[in-house]
Amino acid sequence: MWKLDKNKKVLIIGLGLLGGSYAEALTDLGYHVGALTRSQSSIDYALEKGLIAEGTTKVDPEFIGKYDLLVFCLYPKVFLEWIRENQQYIKSGALITDVTGVKRSVVYPIQSILREDVEFIAAHPMAGREVYGVQNATKTIFKNANYIVTPTLKNTQEGIEACEELGRILGFRSVKTLSPEQHDEMIGFLSQLTHCIAVSLMVCKESESLVDYTGDSFRDLTRIAKINESMWTELFYMNKDELLLQMELFEEKFNILKEAIRREDTPLIHEIMKLSTEKRKLFDREKPKDPCDK
Amino acid sequence: MWKLDKNKKVLIIGLGLLGGSYAEALTDLGYHVGALTRSQSSIDYALEKGLIAEGTTKVDPEFIGKYDLLVFCLYPKVFLEWIRENQQYIKSGALITDVTGVKRSVVYPIQSILREDVEFIAAHPMAGREVYGVQNATKTIFKNANYIVTPTLKNTQEGIEACEELGRILGFRSVKTLSPEQHDEMIGFLSQLTHCIAVSLMVCKESESLVDYTGDSFRDLTRIAKINESMWTELFYMNKDELLLQMELFEEKFNILKEAIRREDTPLIHEIMKLSTEKRKLFDREKPKDPCDK
Repeated sequence: MWKLDKNKKVLIIGLGLLGGSYAEALTDLGYHVGALTRSQSSIDYALEKGLIAEGTTKVDPEFIGKYDLLVFCLYPKVFLEWIRENQQYIKSGALITDVTGVKRSVVYPIQSILREDVEFIAAHPMAGREVYGVQNATKTIFKNANYIVTPTLKNTQEGIEACEELGRILGFRSVKTLSPEQHDEMIGFLSQLTHCIAVSLMVCKESESLVDYTGDSFRDLTRIAKINESMWTELFYMNKDELLLQMELFEEKFNILKEAIRREDTPLIHEIMKLSTEKRKLFDREKPKDPCDK
Repeated sequence: MWKLDKNKKVLIIGLGLLGGSYAEALTDLGYHVGALTRSQSSIDYALEKGLIAEGTTKVDPEFIGKYDLLVFCLYPKVFLEWIRENQQYIKSGALITDVTGVKRSVVYPIQSILREDVEFIAAHPMAGREVYGVQNATKTIFKNANYIVTPTLKNTQEGIEACEELGRILGFRSVKTLSPEQHDEMIGFLSQLTHCIAVSLMVCKESESLVDYTGDSFRDLTRIAKINESMWTELFYMNKDELLLQMELFEEKFNILKEAIRREDTPLIHEIMKLSTEKRKLFDREKPKDPCDK
């Protein structure tokens, strides 16, 4: 029976913002946490700050083979490649999980090539900041965030429960389960589409003088317009079908409103605005009051 | 020489969120402030809280004729109508100003029918909250906001300076001047377009369960999706040409990004994202650090 407890050694593969934050949270809870990552300076930093107990930049079979829970924090293609090349070093019976922002295109390929005696239970910690790197890692990013577990038919009840438990002990506000399909539709809309909107809005105008007049509206809509292009482009491609669907859905609604304004269809515009106001109020009821929610 | 000083009596016409906030700020500065508004309960509230010295719901020629500075906080069409019907009661040499969110369609018609011995200097206090009514009025809404004065060839240097001074004493973060045309383009983009985006995004999905998964991205983009449909529709119509232009501009950029994703044009996507990140960073440098800017 694989249960998550402090006897399980945890290996973070990819010591960046999320990997470092997982490391900090788990080390603080008393877990033995190691790291495998490309950058020696990331390891040095993490050792110095006590985020990890040990670390290496080399794919060392003996090192890897010590661990019971492996958390992959790599770009999706690198993750798949890593499993293809190195999965033989993973301890038999180990559990592996991830933090990848898209699911179908990661979980199915990996599960299809993975050894029978190792289980991959995918998850998406919906946490992050517009900064990157282990130097910005902090376990506090989990506090107001959602953790999504995305099991498939290949996952066991044990594996799923262990992964949910991981989300709980990390301190996420909520731990939920979705299929990879539901996850990708959700993320395509709530996260990827919104970033596309923010970016498109941000690049509309040449003039820098707009900064002088900007009110809260523009600032709110472009807060997420600072974007790591390599990571986001890769995630977009890996969820392309869903993302394009969501973009087209948004375009359709936007166009309906635009044409209603053009022909001054007041009843329709009012209907859309009232629906919007109603739906938005649902958020206020659900969310604990954030002093920054003006 | 018309100068703004405490001997000038101020009349607020339309005692709502903005009118009430102007009243509070000016009364606290020692001005004599009166109000003319439709709702007796608004007047009662304002008298009780000491926002105004006196008020009436009736168009009373003697009452109106006492005032030196008239601040109109009415819906645009109502404002124009009011001037048409009641301008003869305004004291000779008085200065009138407003808070209307669009300029060309307000300032030119009003100036063209206004008496020669009364000056209308238009302004737009870019402040507001998603709530309405005098009970929500507070002079603190001016603190981090921009005040735009929109003079025309019919305005005098005195009138412009008095209006700028008004913005300064009300406590706005900045007082700037734009032509009505520049203002309408700016507001069409920064405020009206952004509200159209937020509303369109908000009405995309039926499912209430999205609330459960919402991260900061969606919340940021829909913060302004709560919208007073009467006021906003009227303002949209009165700036329709500019708003439609800005909506089409945004649609174009959004479509470019969408098609680049569809054909996996990585160099173009990266270019757009890097430009967006660069432009967004300009905001952070310009704005004093807001603890709520995550």
